[in-house]
Amino acid sequence: MRMVDIIAKKRDGLELSSEEIQFLVSGYTDGSIPDYQMSAWAMAVLLRGMTPRETGDLTLAMAGSGEQLDLSSLKGIKVDKHSTGGVGDKTTLVVAPLVAAAGIPVAKMSGRGLGHSGGTIDKLESFAGFQVERTREQFLQQVREIGVSVIGQSGNLTPADKKLYALRDVTATVEAVPLIASSIMSKKIAAGADAILLDVKVGKGAFMKTLEQAETLASAMVQIGTQVGRRTVAVISDMNQPLGFAVGNALEVKEAIDTLAGRGPKDLTELALAIGAHMLVLGELVADVEEGRKRLEEIMDSGKAVEKLAQMIEAQGGNKEDVYNPDRLPKASLTAEVKASQDGYISAIDAETVGHASVVLGAGRLTKEMPIDLAVGIVLAKKRGDQVRKGDVLATVHANDEILLKQAVEELKGAYTYDSESLIDQPLIYKIITE
Amino acid sequence: MRMVDIIAKKRDGLELSSEEIQFLVSGYTDGSIPDYQMSAWAMAVLLRGMTPRETGDLTLAMAGSGEQLDLSSLKGIKVDKHSTGGVGDKTTLVVAPLVAAAGIPVAKMSGRGLGHSGGTIDKLESFAGFQVERTREQFLQQVREIGVSVIGQSGNLTPADKKLYALRDVTATVEAVPLIASSIMSKKIAAGADAILLDVKVGKGAFMKTLEQAETLASAMVQIGTQVGRRTVAVISDMNQPLGFAVGNALEVKEAIDTLAGRGPKDLTELALAIGAHMLVLGELVADVEEGRKRLEEIMDSGKAVEKLAQMIEAQGGNKEDVYNPDRLPKASLTAEVKASQDGYISAIDAETVGHASVVLGAGRLTKEMPIDLAVGIVLAKKRGDQVRKGDVLATVHANDEILLKQAVEELKGAYTYDSESLIDQPLIYKIITE
Repeated sequence: MRMVDIIAKKRDGLELSSEEIQFLVSGYTDGSIPDYQMSAWAMAVLLRGMTPRETGDLTLAMAGSGEQLDLSSLKGIKVDKHSTGGVGDKTTLVVAPLVAAAGIPVAKMSGRGLGHSGGTIDKLESFAGFQVERTREQFLQQVREIGVSVIGQSGNLTPADKKLYALRDVTATVEAVPLIASSIMSKKIAAGADAILLDVKVGKGAFMKTLEQAETLASAMVQIGTQVGRRTVAVISDMNQPLGFAVGNALEVKEAIDTLAGRGPKDLTELALAIGAHMLVLGELVADVEEGRKRLEEIMDSGKAVEKLAQMIEAQGGNKEDVYNPDRLPKASLTAEVKASQDGYISAIDAETVGHASVVLGAGRLTKEMPIDLAVGIVLAKKRGDQVRKGDVLATVHANDEILLKQAVEELKGAYTYDSESLIDQPLIYKIITE
Repeated sequence: MRMVDIIAKKRDGLELSSEEIQFLVSGYTDGSIPDYQMSAWAMAVLLRGMTPRETGDLTLAMAGSGEQLDLSSLKGIKVDKHSTGGVGDKTTLVVAPLVAAAGIPVAKMSGRGLGHSGGTIDKLESFAGFQVERTREQFLQQVREIGVSVIGQSGNLTPADKKLYALRDVTATVEAVPLIASSIMSKKIAAGADAILLDVKVGKGAFMKTLEQAETLASAMVQIGTQVGRRTVAVISDMNQPLGFAVGNALEVKEAIDTLAGRGPKDLTELALAIGAHMLVLGELVADVEEGRKRLEEIMDSGKAVEKLAQMIEAQGGNKEDVYNPDRLPKASLTAEVKASQDGYISAIDAETVGHASVVLGAGRLTKEMPIDLAVGIVLAKKRGDQVRKGDVLATVHANDEILLKQAVEELKGAYTYDSESLIDQPLIYKIITE
């Protein structure tokens, strides 16, 4: 088998065999296939596409390219959750303890953020002493004992995907849907998922800007799930404005705790319940989504969801008091308010601008090496559709630097647009895609 | 400017600016743009195409990426000739002295062969003592004195094209027409051509297998010529059967001398006259092709064409006696005949098979490092359309090794197909494409 023939086949729009896909993933992983052949192939995939069978094979080959987590010692169906990322997206902080409290074993590897804001792992480090690096045995033992652990990505998982992702970034092949889909799914499979819940974000603050793009990606991933025998459900949710009110690590943690206690923002609560309910169905703990939702609402109301988070924080070296009293979390030294420049209804809060302002403050990083400030961020006071009068507070900015504070306030002003009339509600969840 | 943005633009089917094309050629030449970006771009070009303006810019940028031959000290319009290559194609050996004798200054750099048979430079080395490496001054001085010199490619001409060509070979992007066209044209321009005559071969023994493919390539090159201000004419000629009778270096030289003397094979003579006549028009020595053809026929008949070749051989260190008495050229020690297996008309002589048999004998090379045997080869006795009786000699094989001789004879038998009826003539020249 020769890579040049495999490239030519894809270039001509033909379907690659399972053996050819395994050959190219193995060869790329061990270095026998060079970057310049892989990038030509990736461009051919972008312009010619891949069949579901090919995409499934690629996913399994990448999942098998390195270490794979064996979660078979944990009882029950392991349902993993993945979000394509957005501004103020702290859903995992809510959903992980919530579904764990309902009986889904949550042994989750999560990433650090790149771009708008910190990732789940960054956010969890808002709890002083919290350990994100654990041995495999510590990790599994904790899930056996309390049902949930969230740790950083460790070990040599999906090296083929890591290499290919870095290459795509510099060869204008990031946008190839089969490659995005197989990248995400291969990581979930290598991390041991039996079933997968995908939160595909769509809108100004997301990678997928249109509903059509989001649907294409979501369908591609659900199809892969079917191909490789992992039940997969995709929720397409709105990312035109930030999710919830808080953007920034400790600020988001606080909001997640509120949500676990049943007093969180309407949109975050709604999304967490929808995602959680589908995870309960995937985990075969409930017969349908309605039953799952009811179960999760009861868990929130009973205080068991907050308690589950507190157990996890304590098990991983943090202090559970930080959960029950979130005022103990890191706090910024300075605050300033962003005020409405006119009367009217807020017609849009540009999520991308809010995300960028949070990066300016230091809440997110643009390169892997950048340190982040856990305390800083933005707390919105109003959301899309709210009526305001000139001078009303739209948001509070939390900072540790005067200059950055001013910069963020200025930038945030540009995030708002107004309308003179009341608006039609924008849906939070556009669509749910199942196999 | 960033290469990743240039790749994305081409990927999306947009036209690159002149600055962008210059940026990518310079960057690739100096190594600041890596192979993996260039190959992704090449695949995007293959699948998305390039406009004539882009292809012209690419050609000029590649021509300017290294040394360029300055032929301005030579009087007259320098008309270069290029063939896309075929089996038994010794046209340059005929055309160069022929048009030089008519007054076109021929300062030609030519290549060694790769694939079916030796290149013009290999063939010229059949003359003992002939020097293919000359200093720039020797080269130009010789053209000033006798009007013609053919030397090997030397110096750092079109390094961008060399690098890109090698990359395309291993990334399944060889077939991109704008890249093939600009590769050929950039080399001609760097070699100092004012005008260009292209011989695009089509058929079983050529890179372009269909007339449509050949026309596409020919038109792309003629369009480049128009774009970059070099008058260009493309002749599309047949390569289903070998050109002339001889295949193999010294054997082809002998046939070229016969043709210069006006007693060559009908097809080779016809093609050389057609190409030469167009070159005389491009060189503005005659008003039209008919006049050019007449002039060249007179030169052949007068013996001046053979004399011009003899002058060139002598000027470059060879012995002109080898031209007047070609029996002095290298000769193989063994011969064997291929005989007709049935009565009938020869309906095809597969050029690719003949070419391969000549490589088996050692007349051509498959890698740059392979030595070649100047003496060996094949001399056809019959061509397509000829009537034969079972047992008639179809070809004589010249070899220096018993085993290879037998192998070549066996292989050649498979090159022939027969028909019971007389055939319609296949054209030698399918089309002539001018701007």
